Amino acid sequence: MARESKAPSERTRVKRVNQRAVYDRPGIDAILDAQPLCHVGYLRDGHPFVTPTFQWREGDTVYFHGSAASQALRAANGADVCLTVSCLDGFVLARSGFHHSVNYRSVMILGKAMPIEDPEIKNTLLNNFVEGLFPGRVETLRPNNDQEIKATTVLSLPISEASAKVRTGNPVDDDEDYELPIWAGVIPLHTTIGKPQDDGRVLDGVEVPDHVLNFGKNLF
Amino acid sequence: MARESKAPSERTRVKRVNQRAVYDRPGIDAILDAQPLCHVGYLRDGHPFVTPTFQWREGDTVYFHGSAASQALRAANGADVCLTVSCLDGFVLARSGFHHSVNYRSVMILGKAMPIEDPEIKNTLLNNFVEGLFPGRVETLRPNNDQEIKATTVLSLPISEASAKVRTGNPVDDDEDYELPIWAGVIPLHTTIGKPQDDGRVLDGVEVPDHVLNFGKNLF
Repeated sequence: MARESKAPSERTRVKRVNQRAVYDRPGIDAILDAQPLCHVGYLRDGHPFVTPTFQWREGDTVYFHGSAASQALRAANGADVCLTVSCLDGFVLARSGFHHSVNYRSVMILGKAMPIEDPEIKNTLLNNFVEGLFPGRVETLRPNNDQEIKATTVLSLPISEASAKVRTGNPVDDDEDYELPIWAGVIPLHTTIGKPQDDGRVLDGVEVPDHVLNFGKNLF
Repeated sequence: MARESKAPSERTRVKRVNQRAVYDRPGIDAILDAQPLCHVGYLRDGHPFVTPTFQWREGDTVYFHGSAASQALRAANGADVCLTVSCLDGFVLARSGFHHSVNYRSVMILGKAMPIEDPEIKNTLLNNFVEGLFPGRVETLRPNNDQEIKATTVLSLPISEASAKVRTGNPVDDDEDYELPIWAGVIPLHTTIGKPQDDGRVLDGVEVPDHVLNFGKNLF
């Protein structure tokens, strides 16, 4: 999986344990498409902040959004950001504390987060975000109105300066430690989808839609 | 849950949707103790970076660690950081795209990440991290050696400038939208623990320990 020479920039090159590095776009896209939760780093008054939010990918761009009044969105707007996506796949238990690890998939994208100004494009992007998670849902919804679109900031970030790291598999212990009578292996973690719960105000005759029943089959 | 007046600083005061704000320490600690995965924001060459790693809490301090050679640990060492912990509890489906949301618990801690220099204290802290996740495991392991302790950086961050945000429950739609024939509610998400898988090199007679069988009962 190591393709170190392909790092898009020095600052995205994975230097430690570089056999975990992934720089090819299909590998990066697969992680982005599996995990909508992301953590965006930005500066406010010179101090780094990290805000959890959601990203969605369209082609070579990731988008994230929030209230136009949000301090995070205002600070990130037009500014350098780091958008990081992580899936935690398991705890790795070794025969020494030092070699304990985790299995994970993560992507880091660096760049400037630029706002989408055109209200129609913004609306289309926001609908695409909903459709990506819940295919078919947008046409069932009350459409966004102008005020809602205005009150929402959508920021875009090109997937140009990006890298991923992936760890899978068993612990790697020091040779001599394999002689020790210690349990070692992996405890897998999964994100599972619970039973959908309506809000108690769904009108009679409205059934649970397929996009709810089938939610998340390709996620996490 | 709103206790806005208790924000420890202006920059940690939750300004938007402030009924979601949590500033009391038991509320903050419960989230930190439930989610070891964190995302640490720091600066490298003036650019914000966000690295996923793990945190553990002891009293009024959170710790995180990594290789002393790690670029992230080196950049965060002695520097301003933001450590953010997030649990994603569900997707909230409303009757308009605009009111879609998520249920979550998150904590943001700002401050300077200071290194633990004393090797004995460092070793104790690292063991505490393993014990916190897997009670009883450390005494079964090959102890850390001096070189391993030296090769590991442990950073501490006081829980003094911290805030949390929590959202629970149903979508909140515009009054008139409740008349629409649209399914609305919550799709819960859970982190579940899979069946432990030994690495195929566990010696005969070594059983799966309780700290593996019972892993994660109080997490996520």
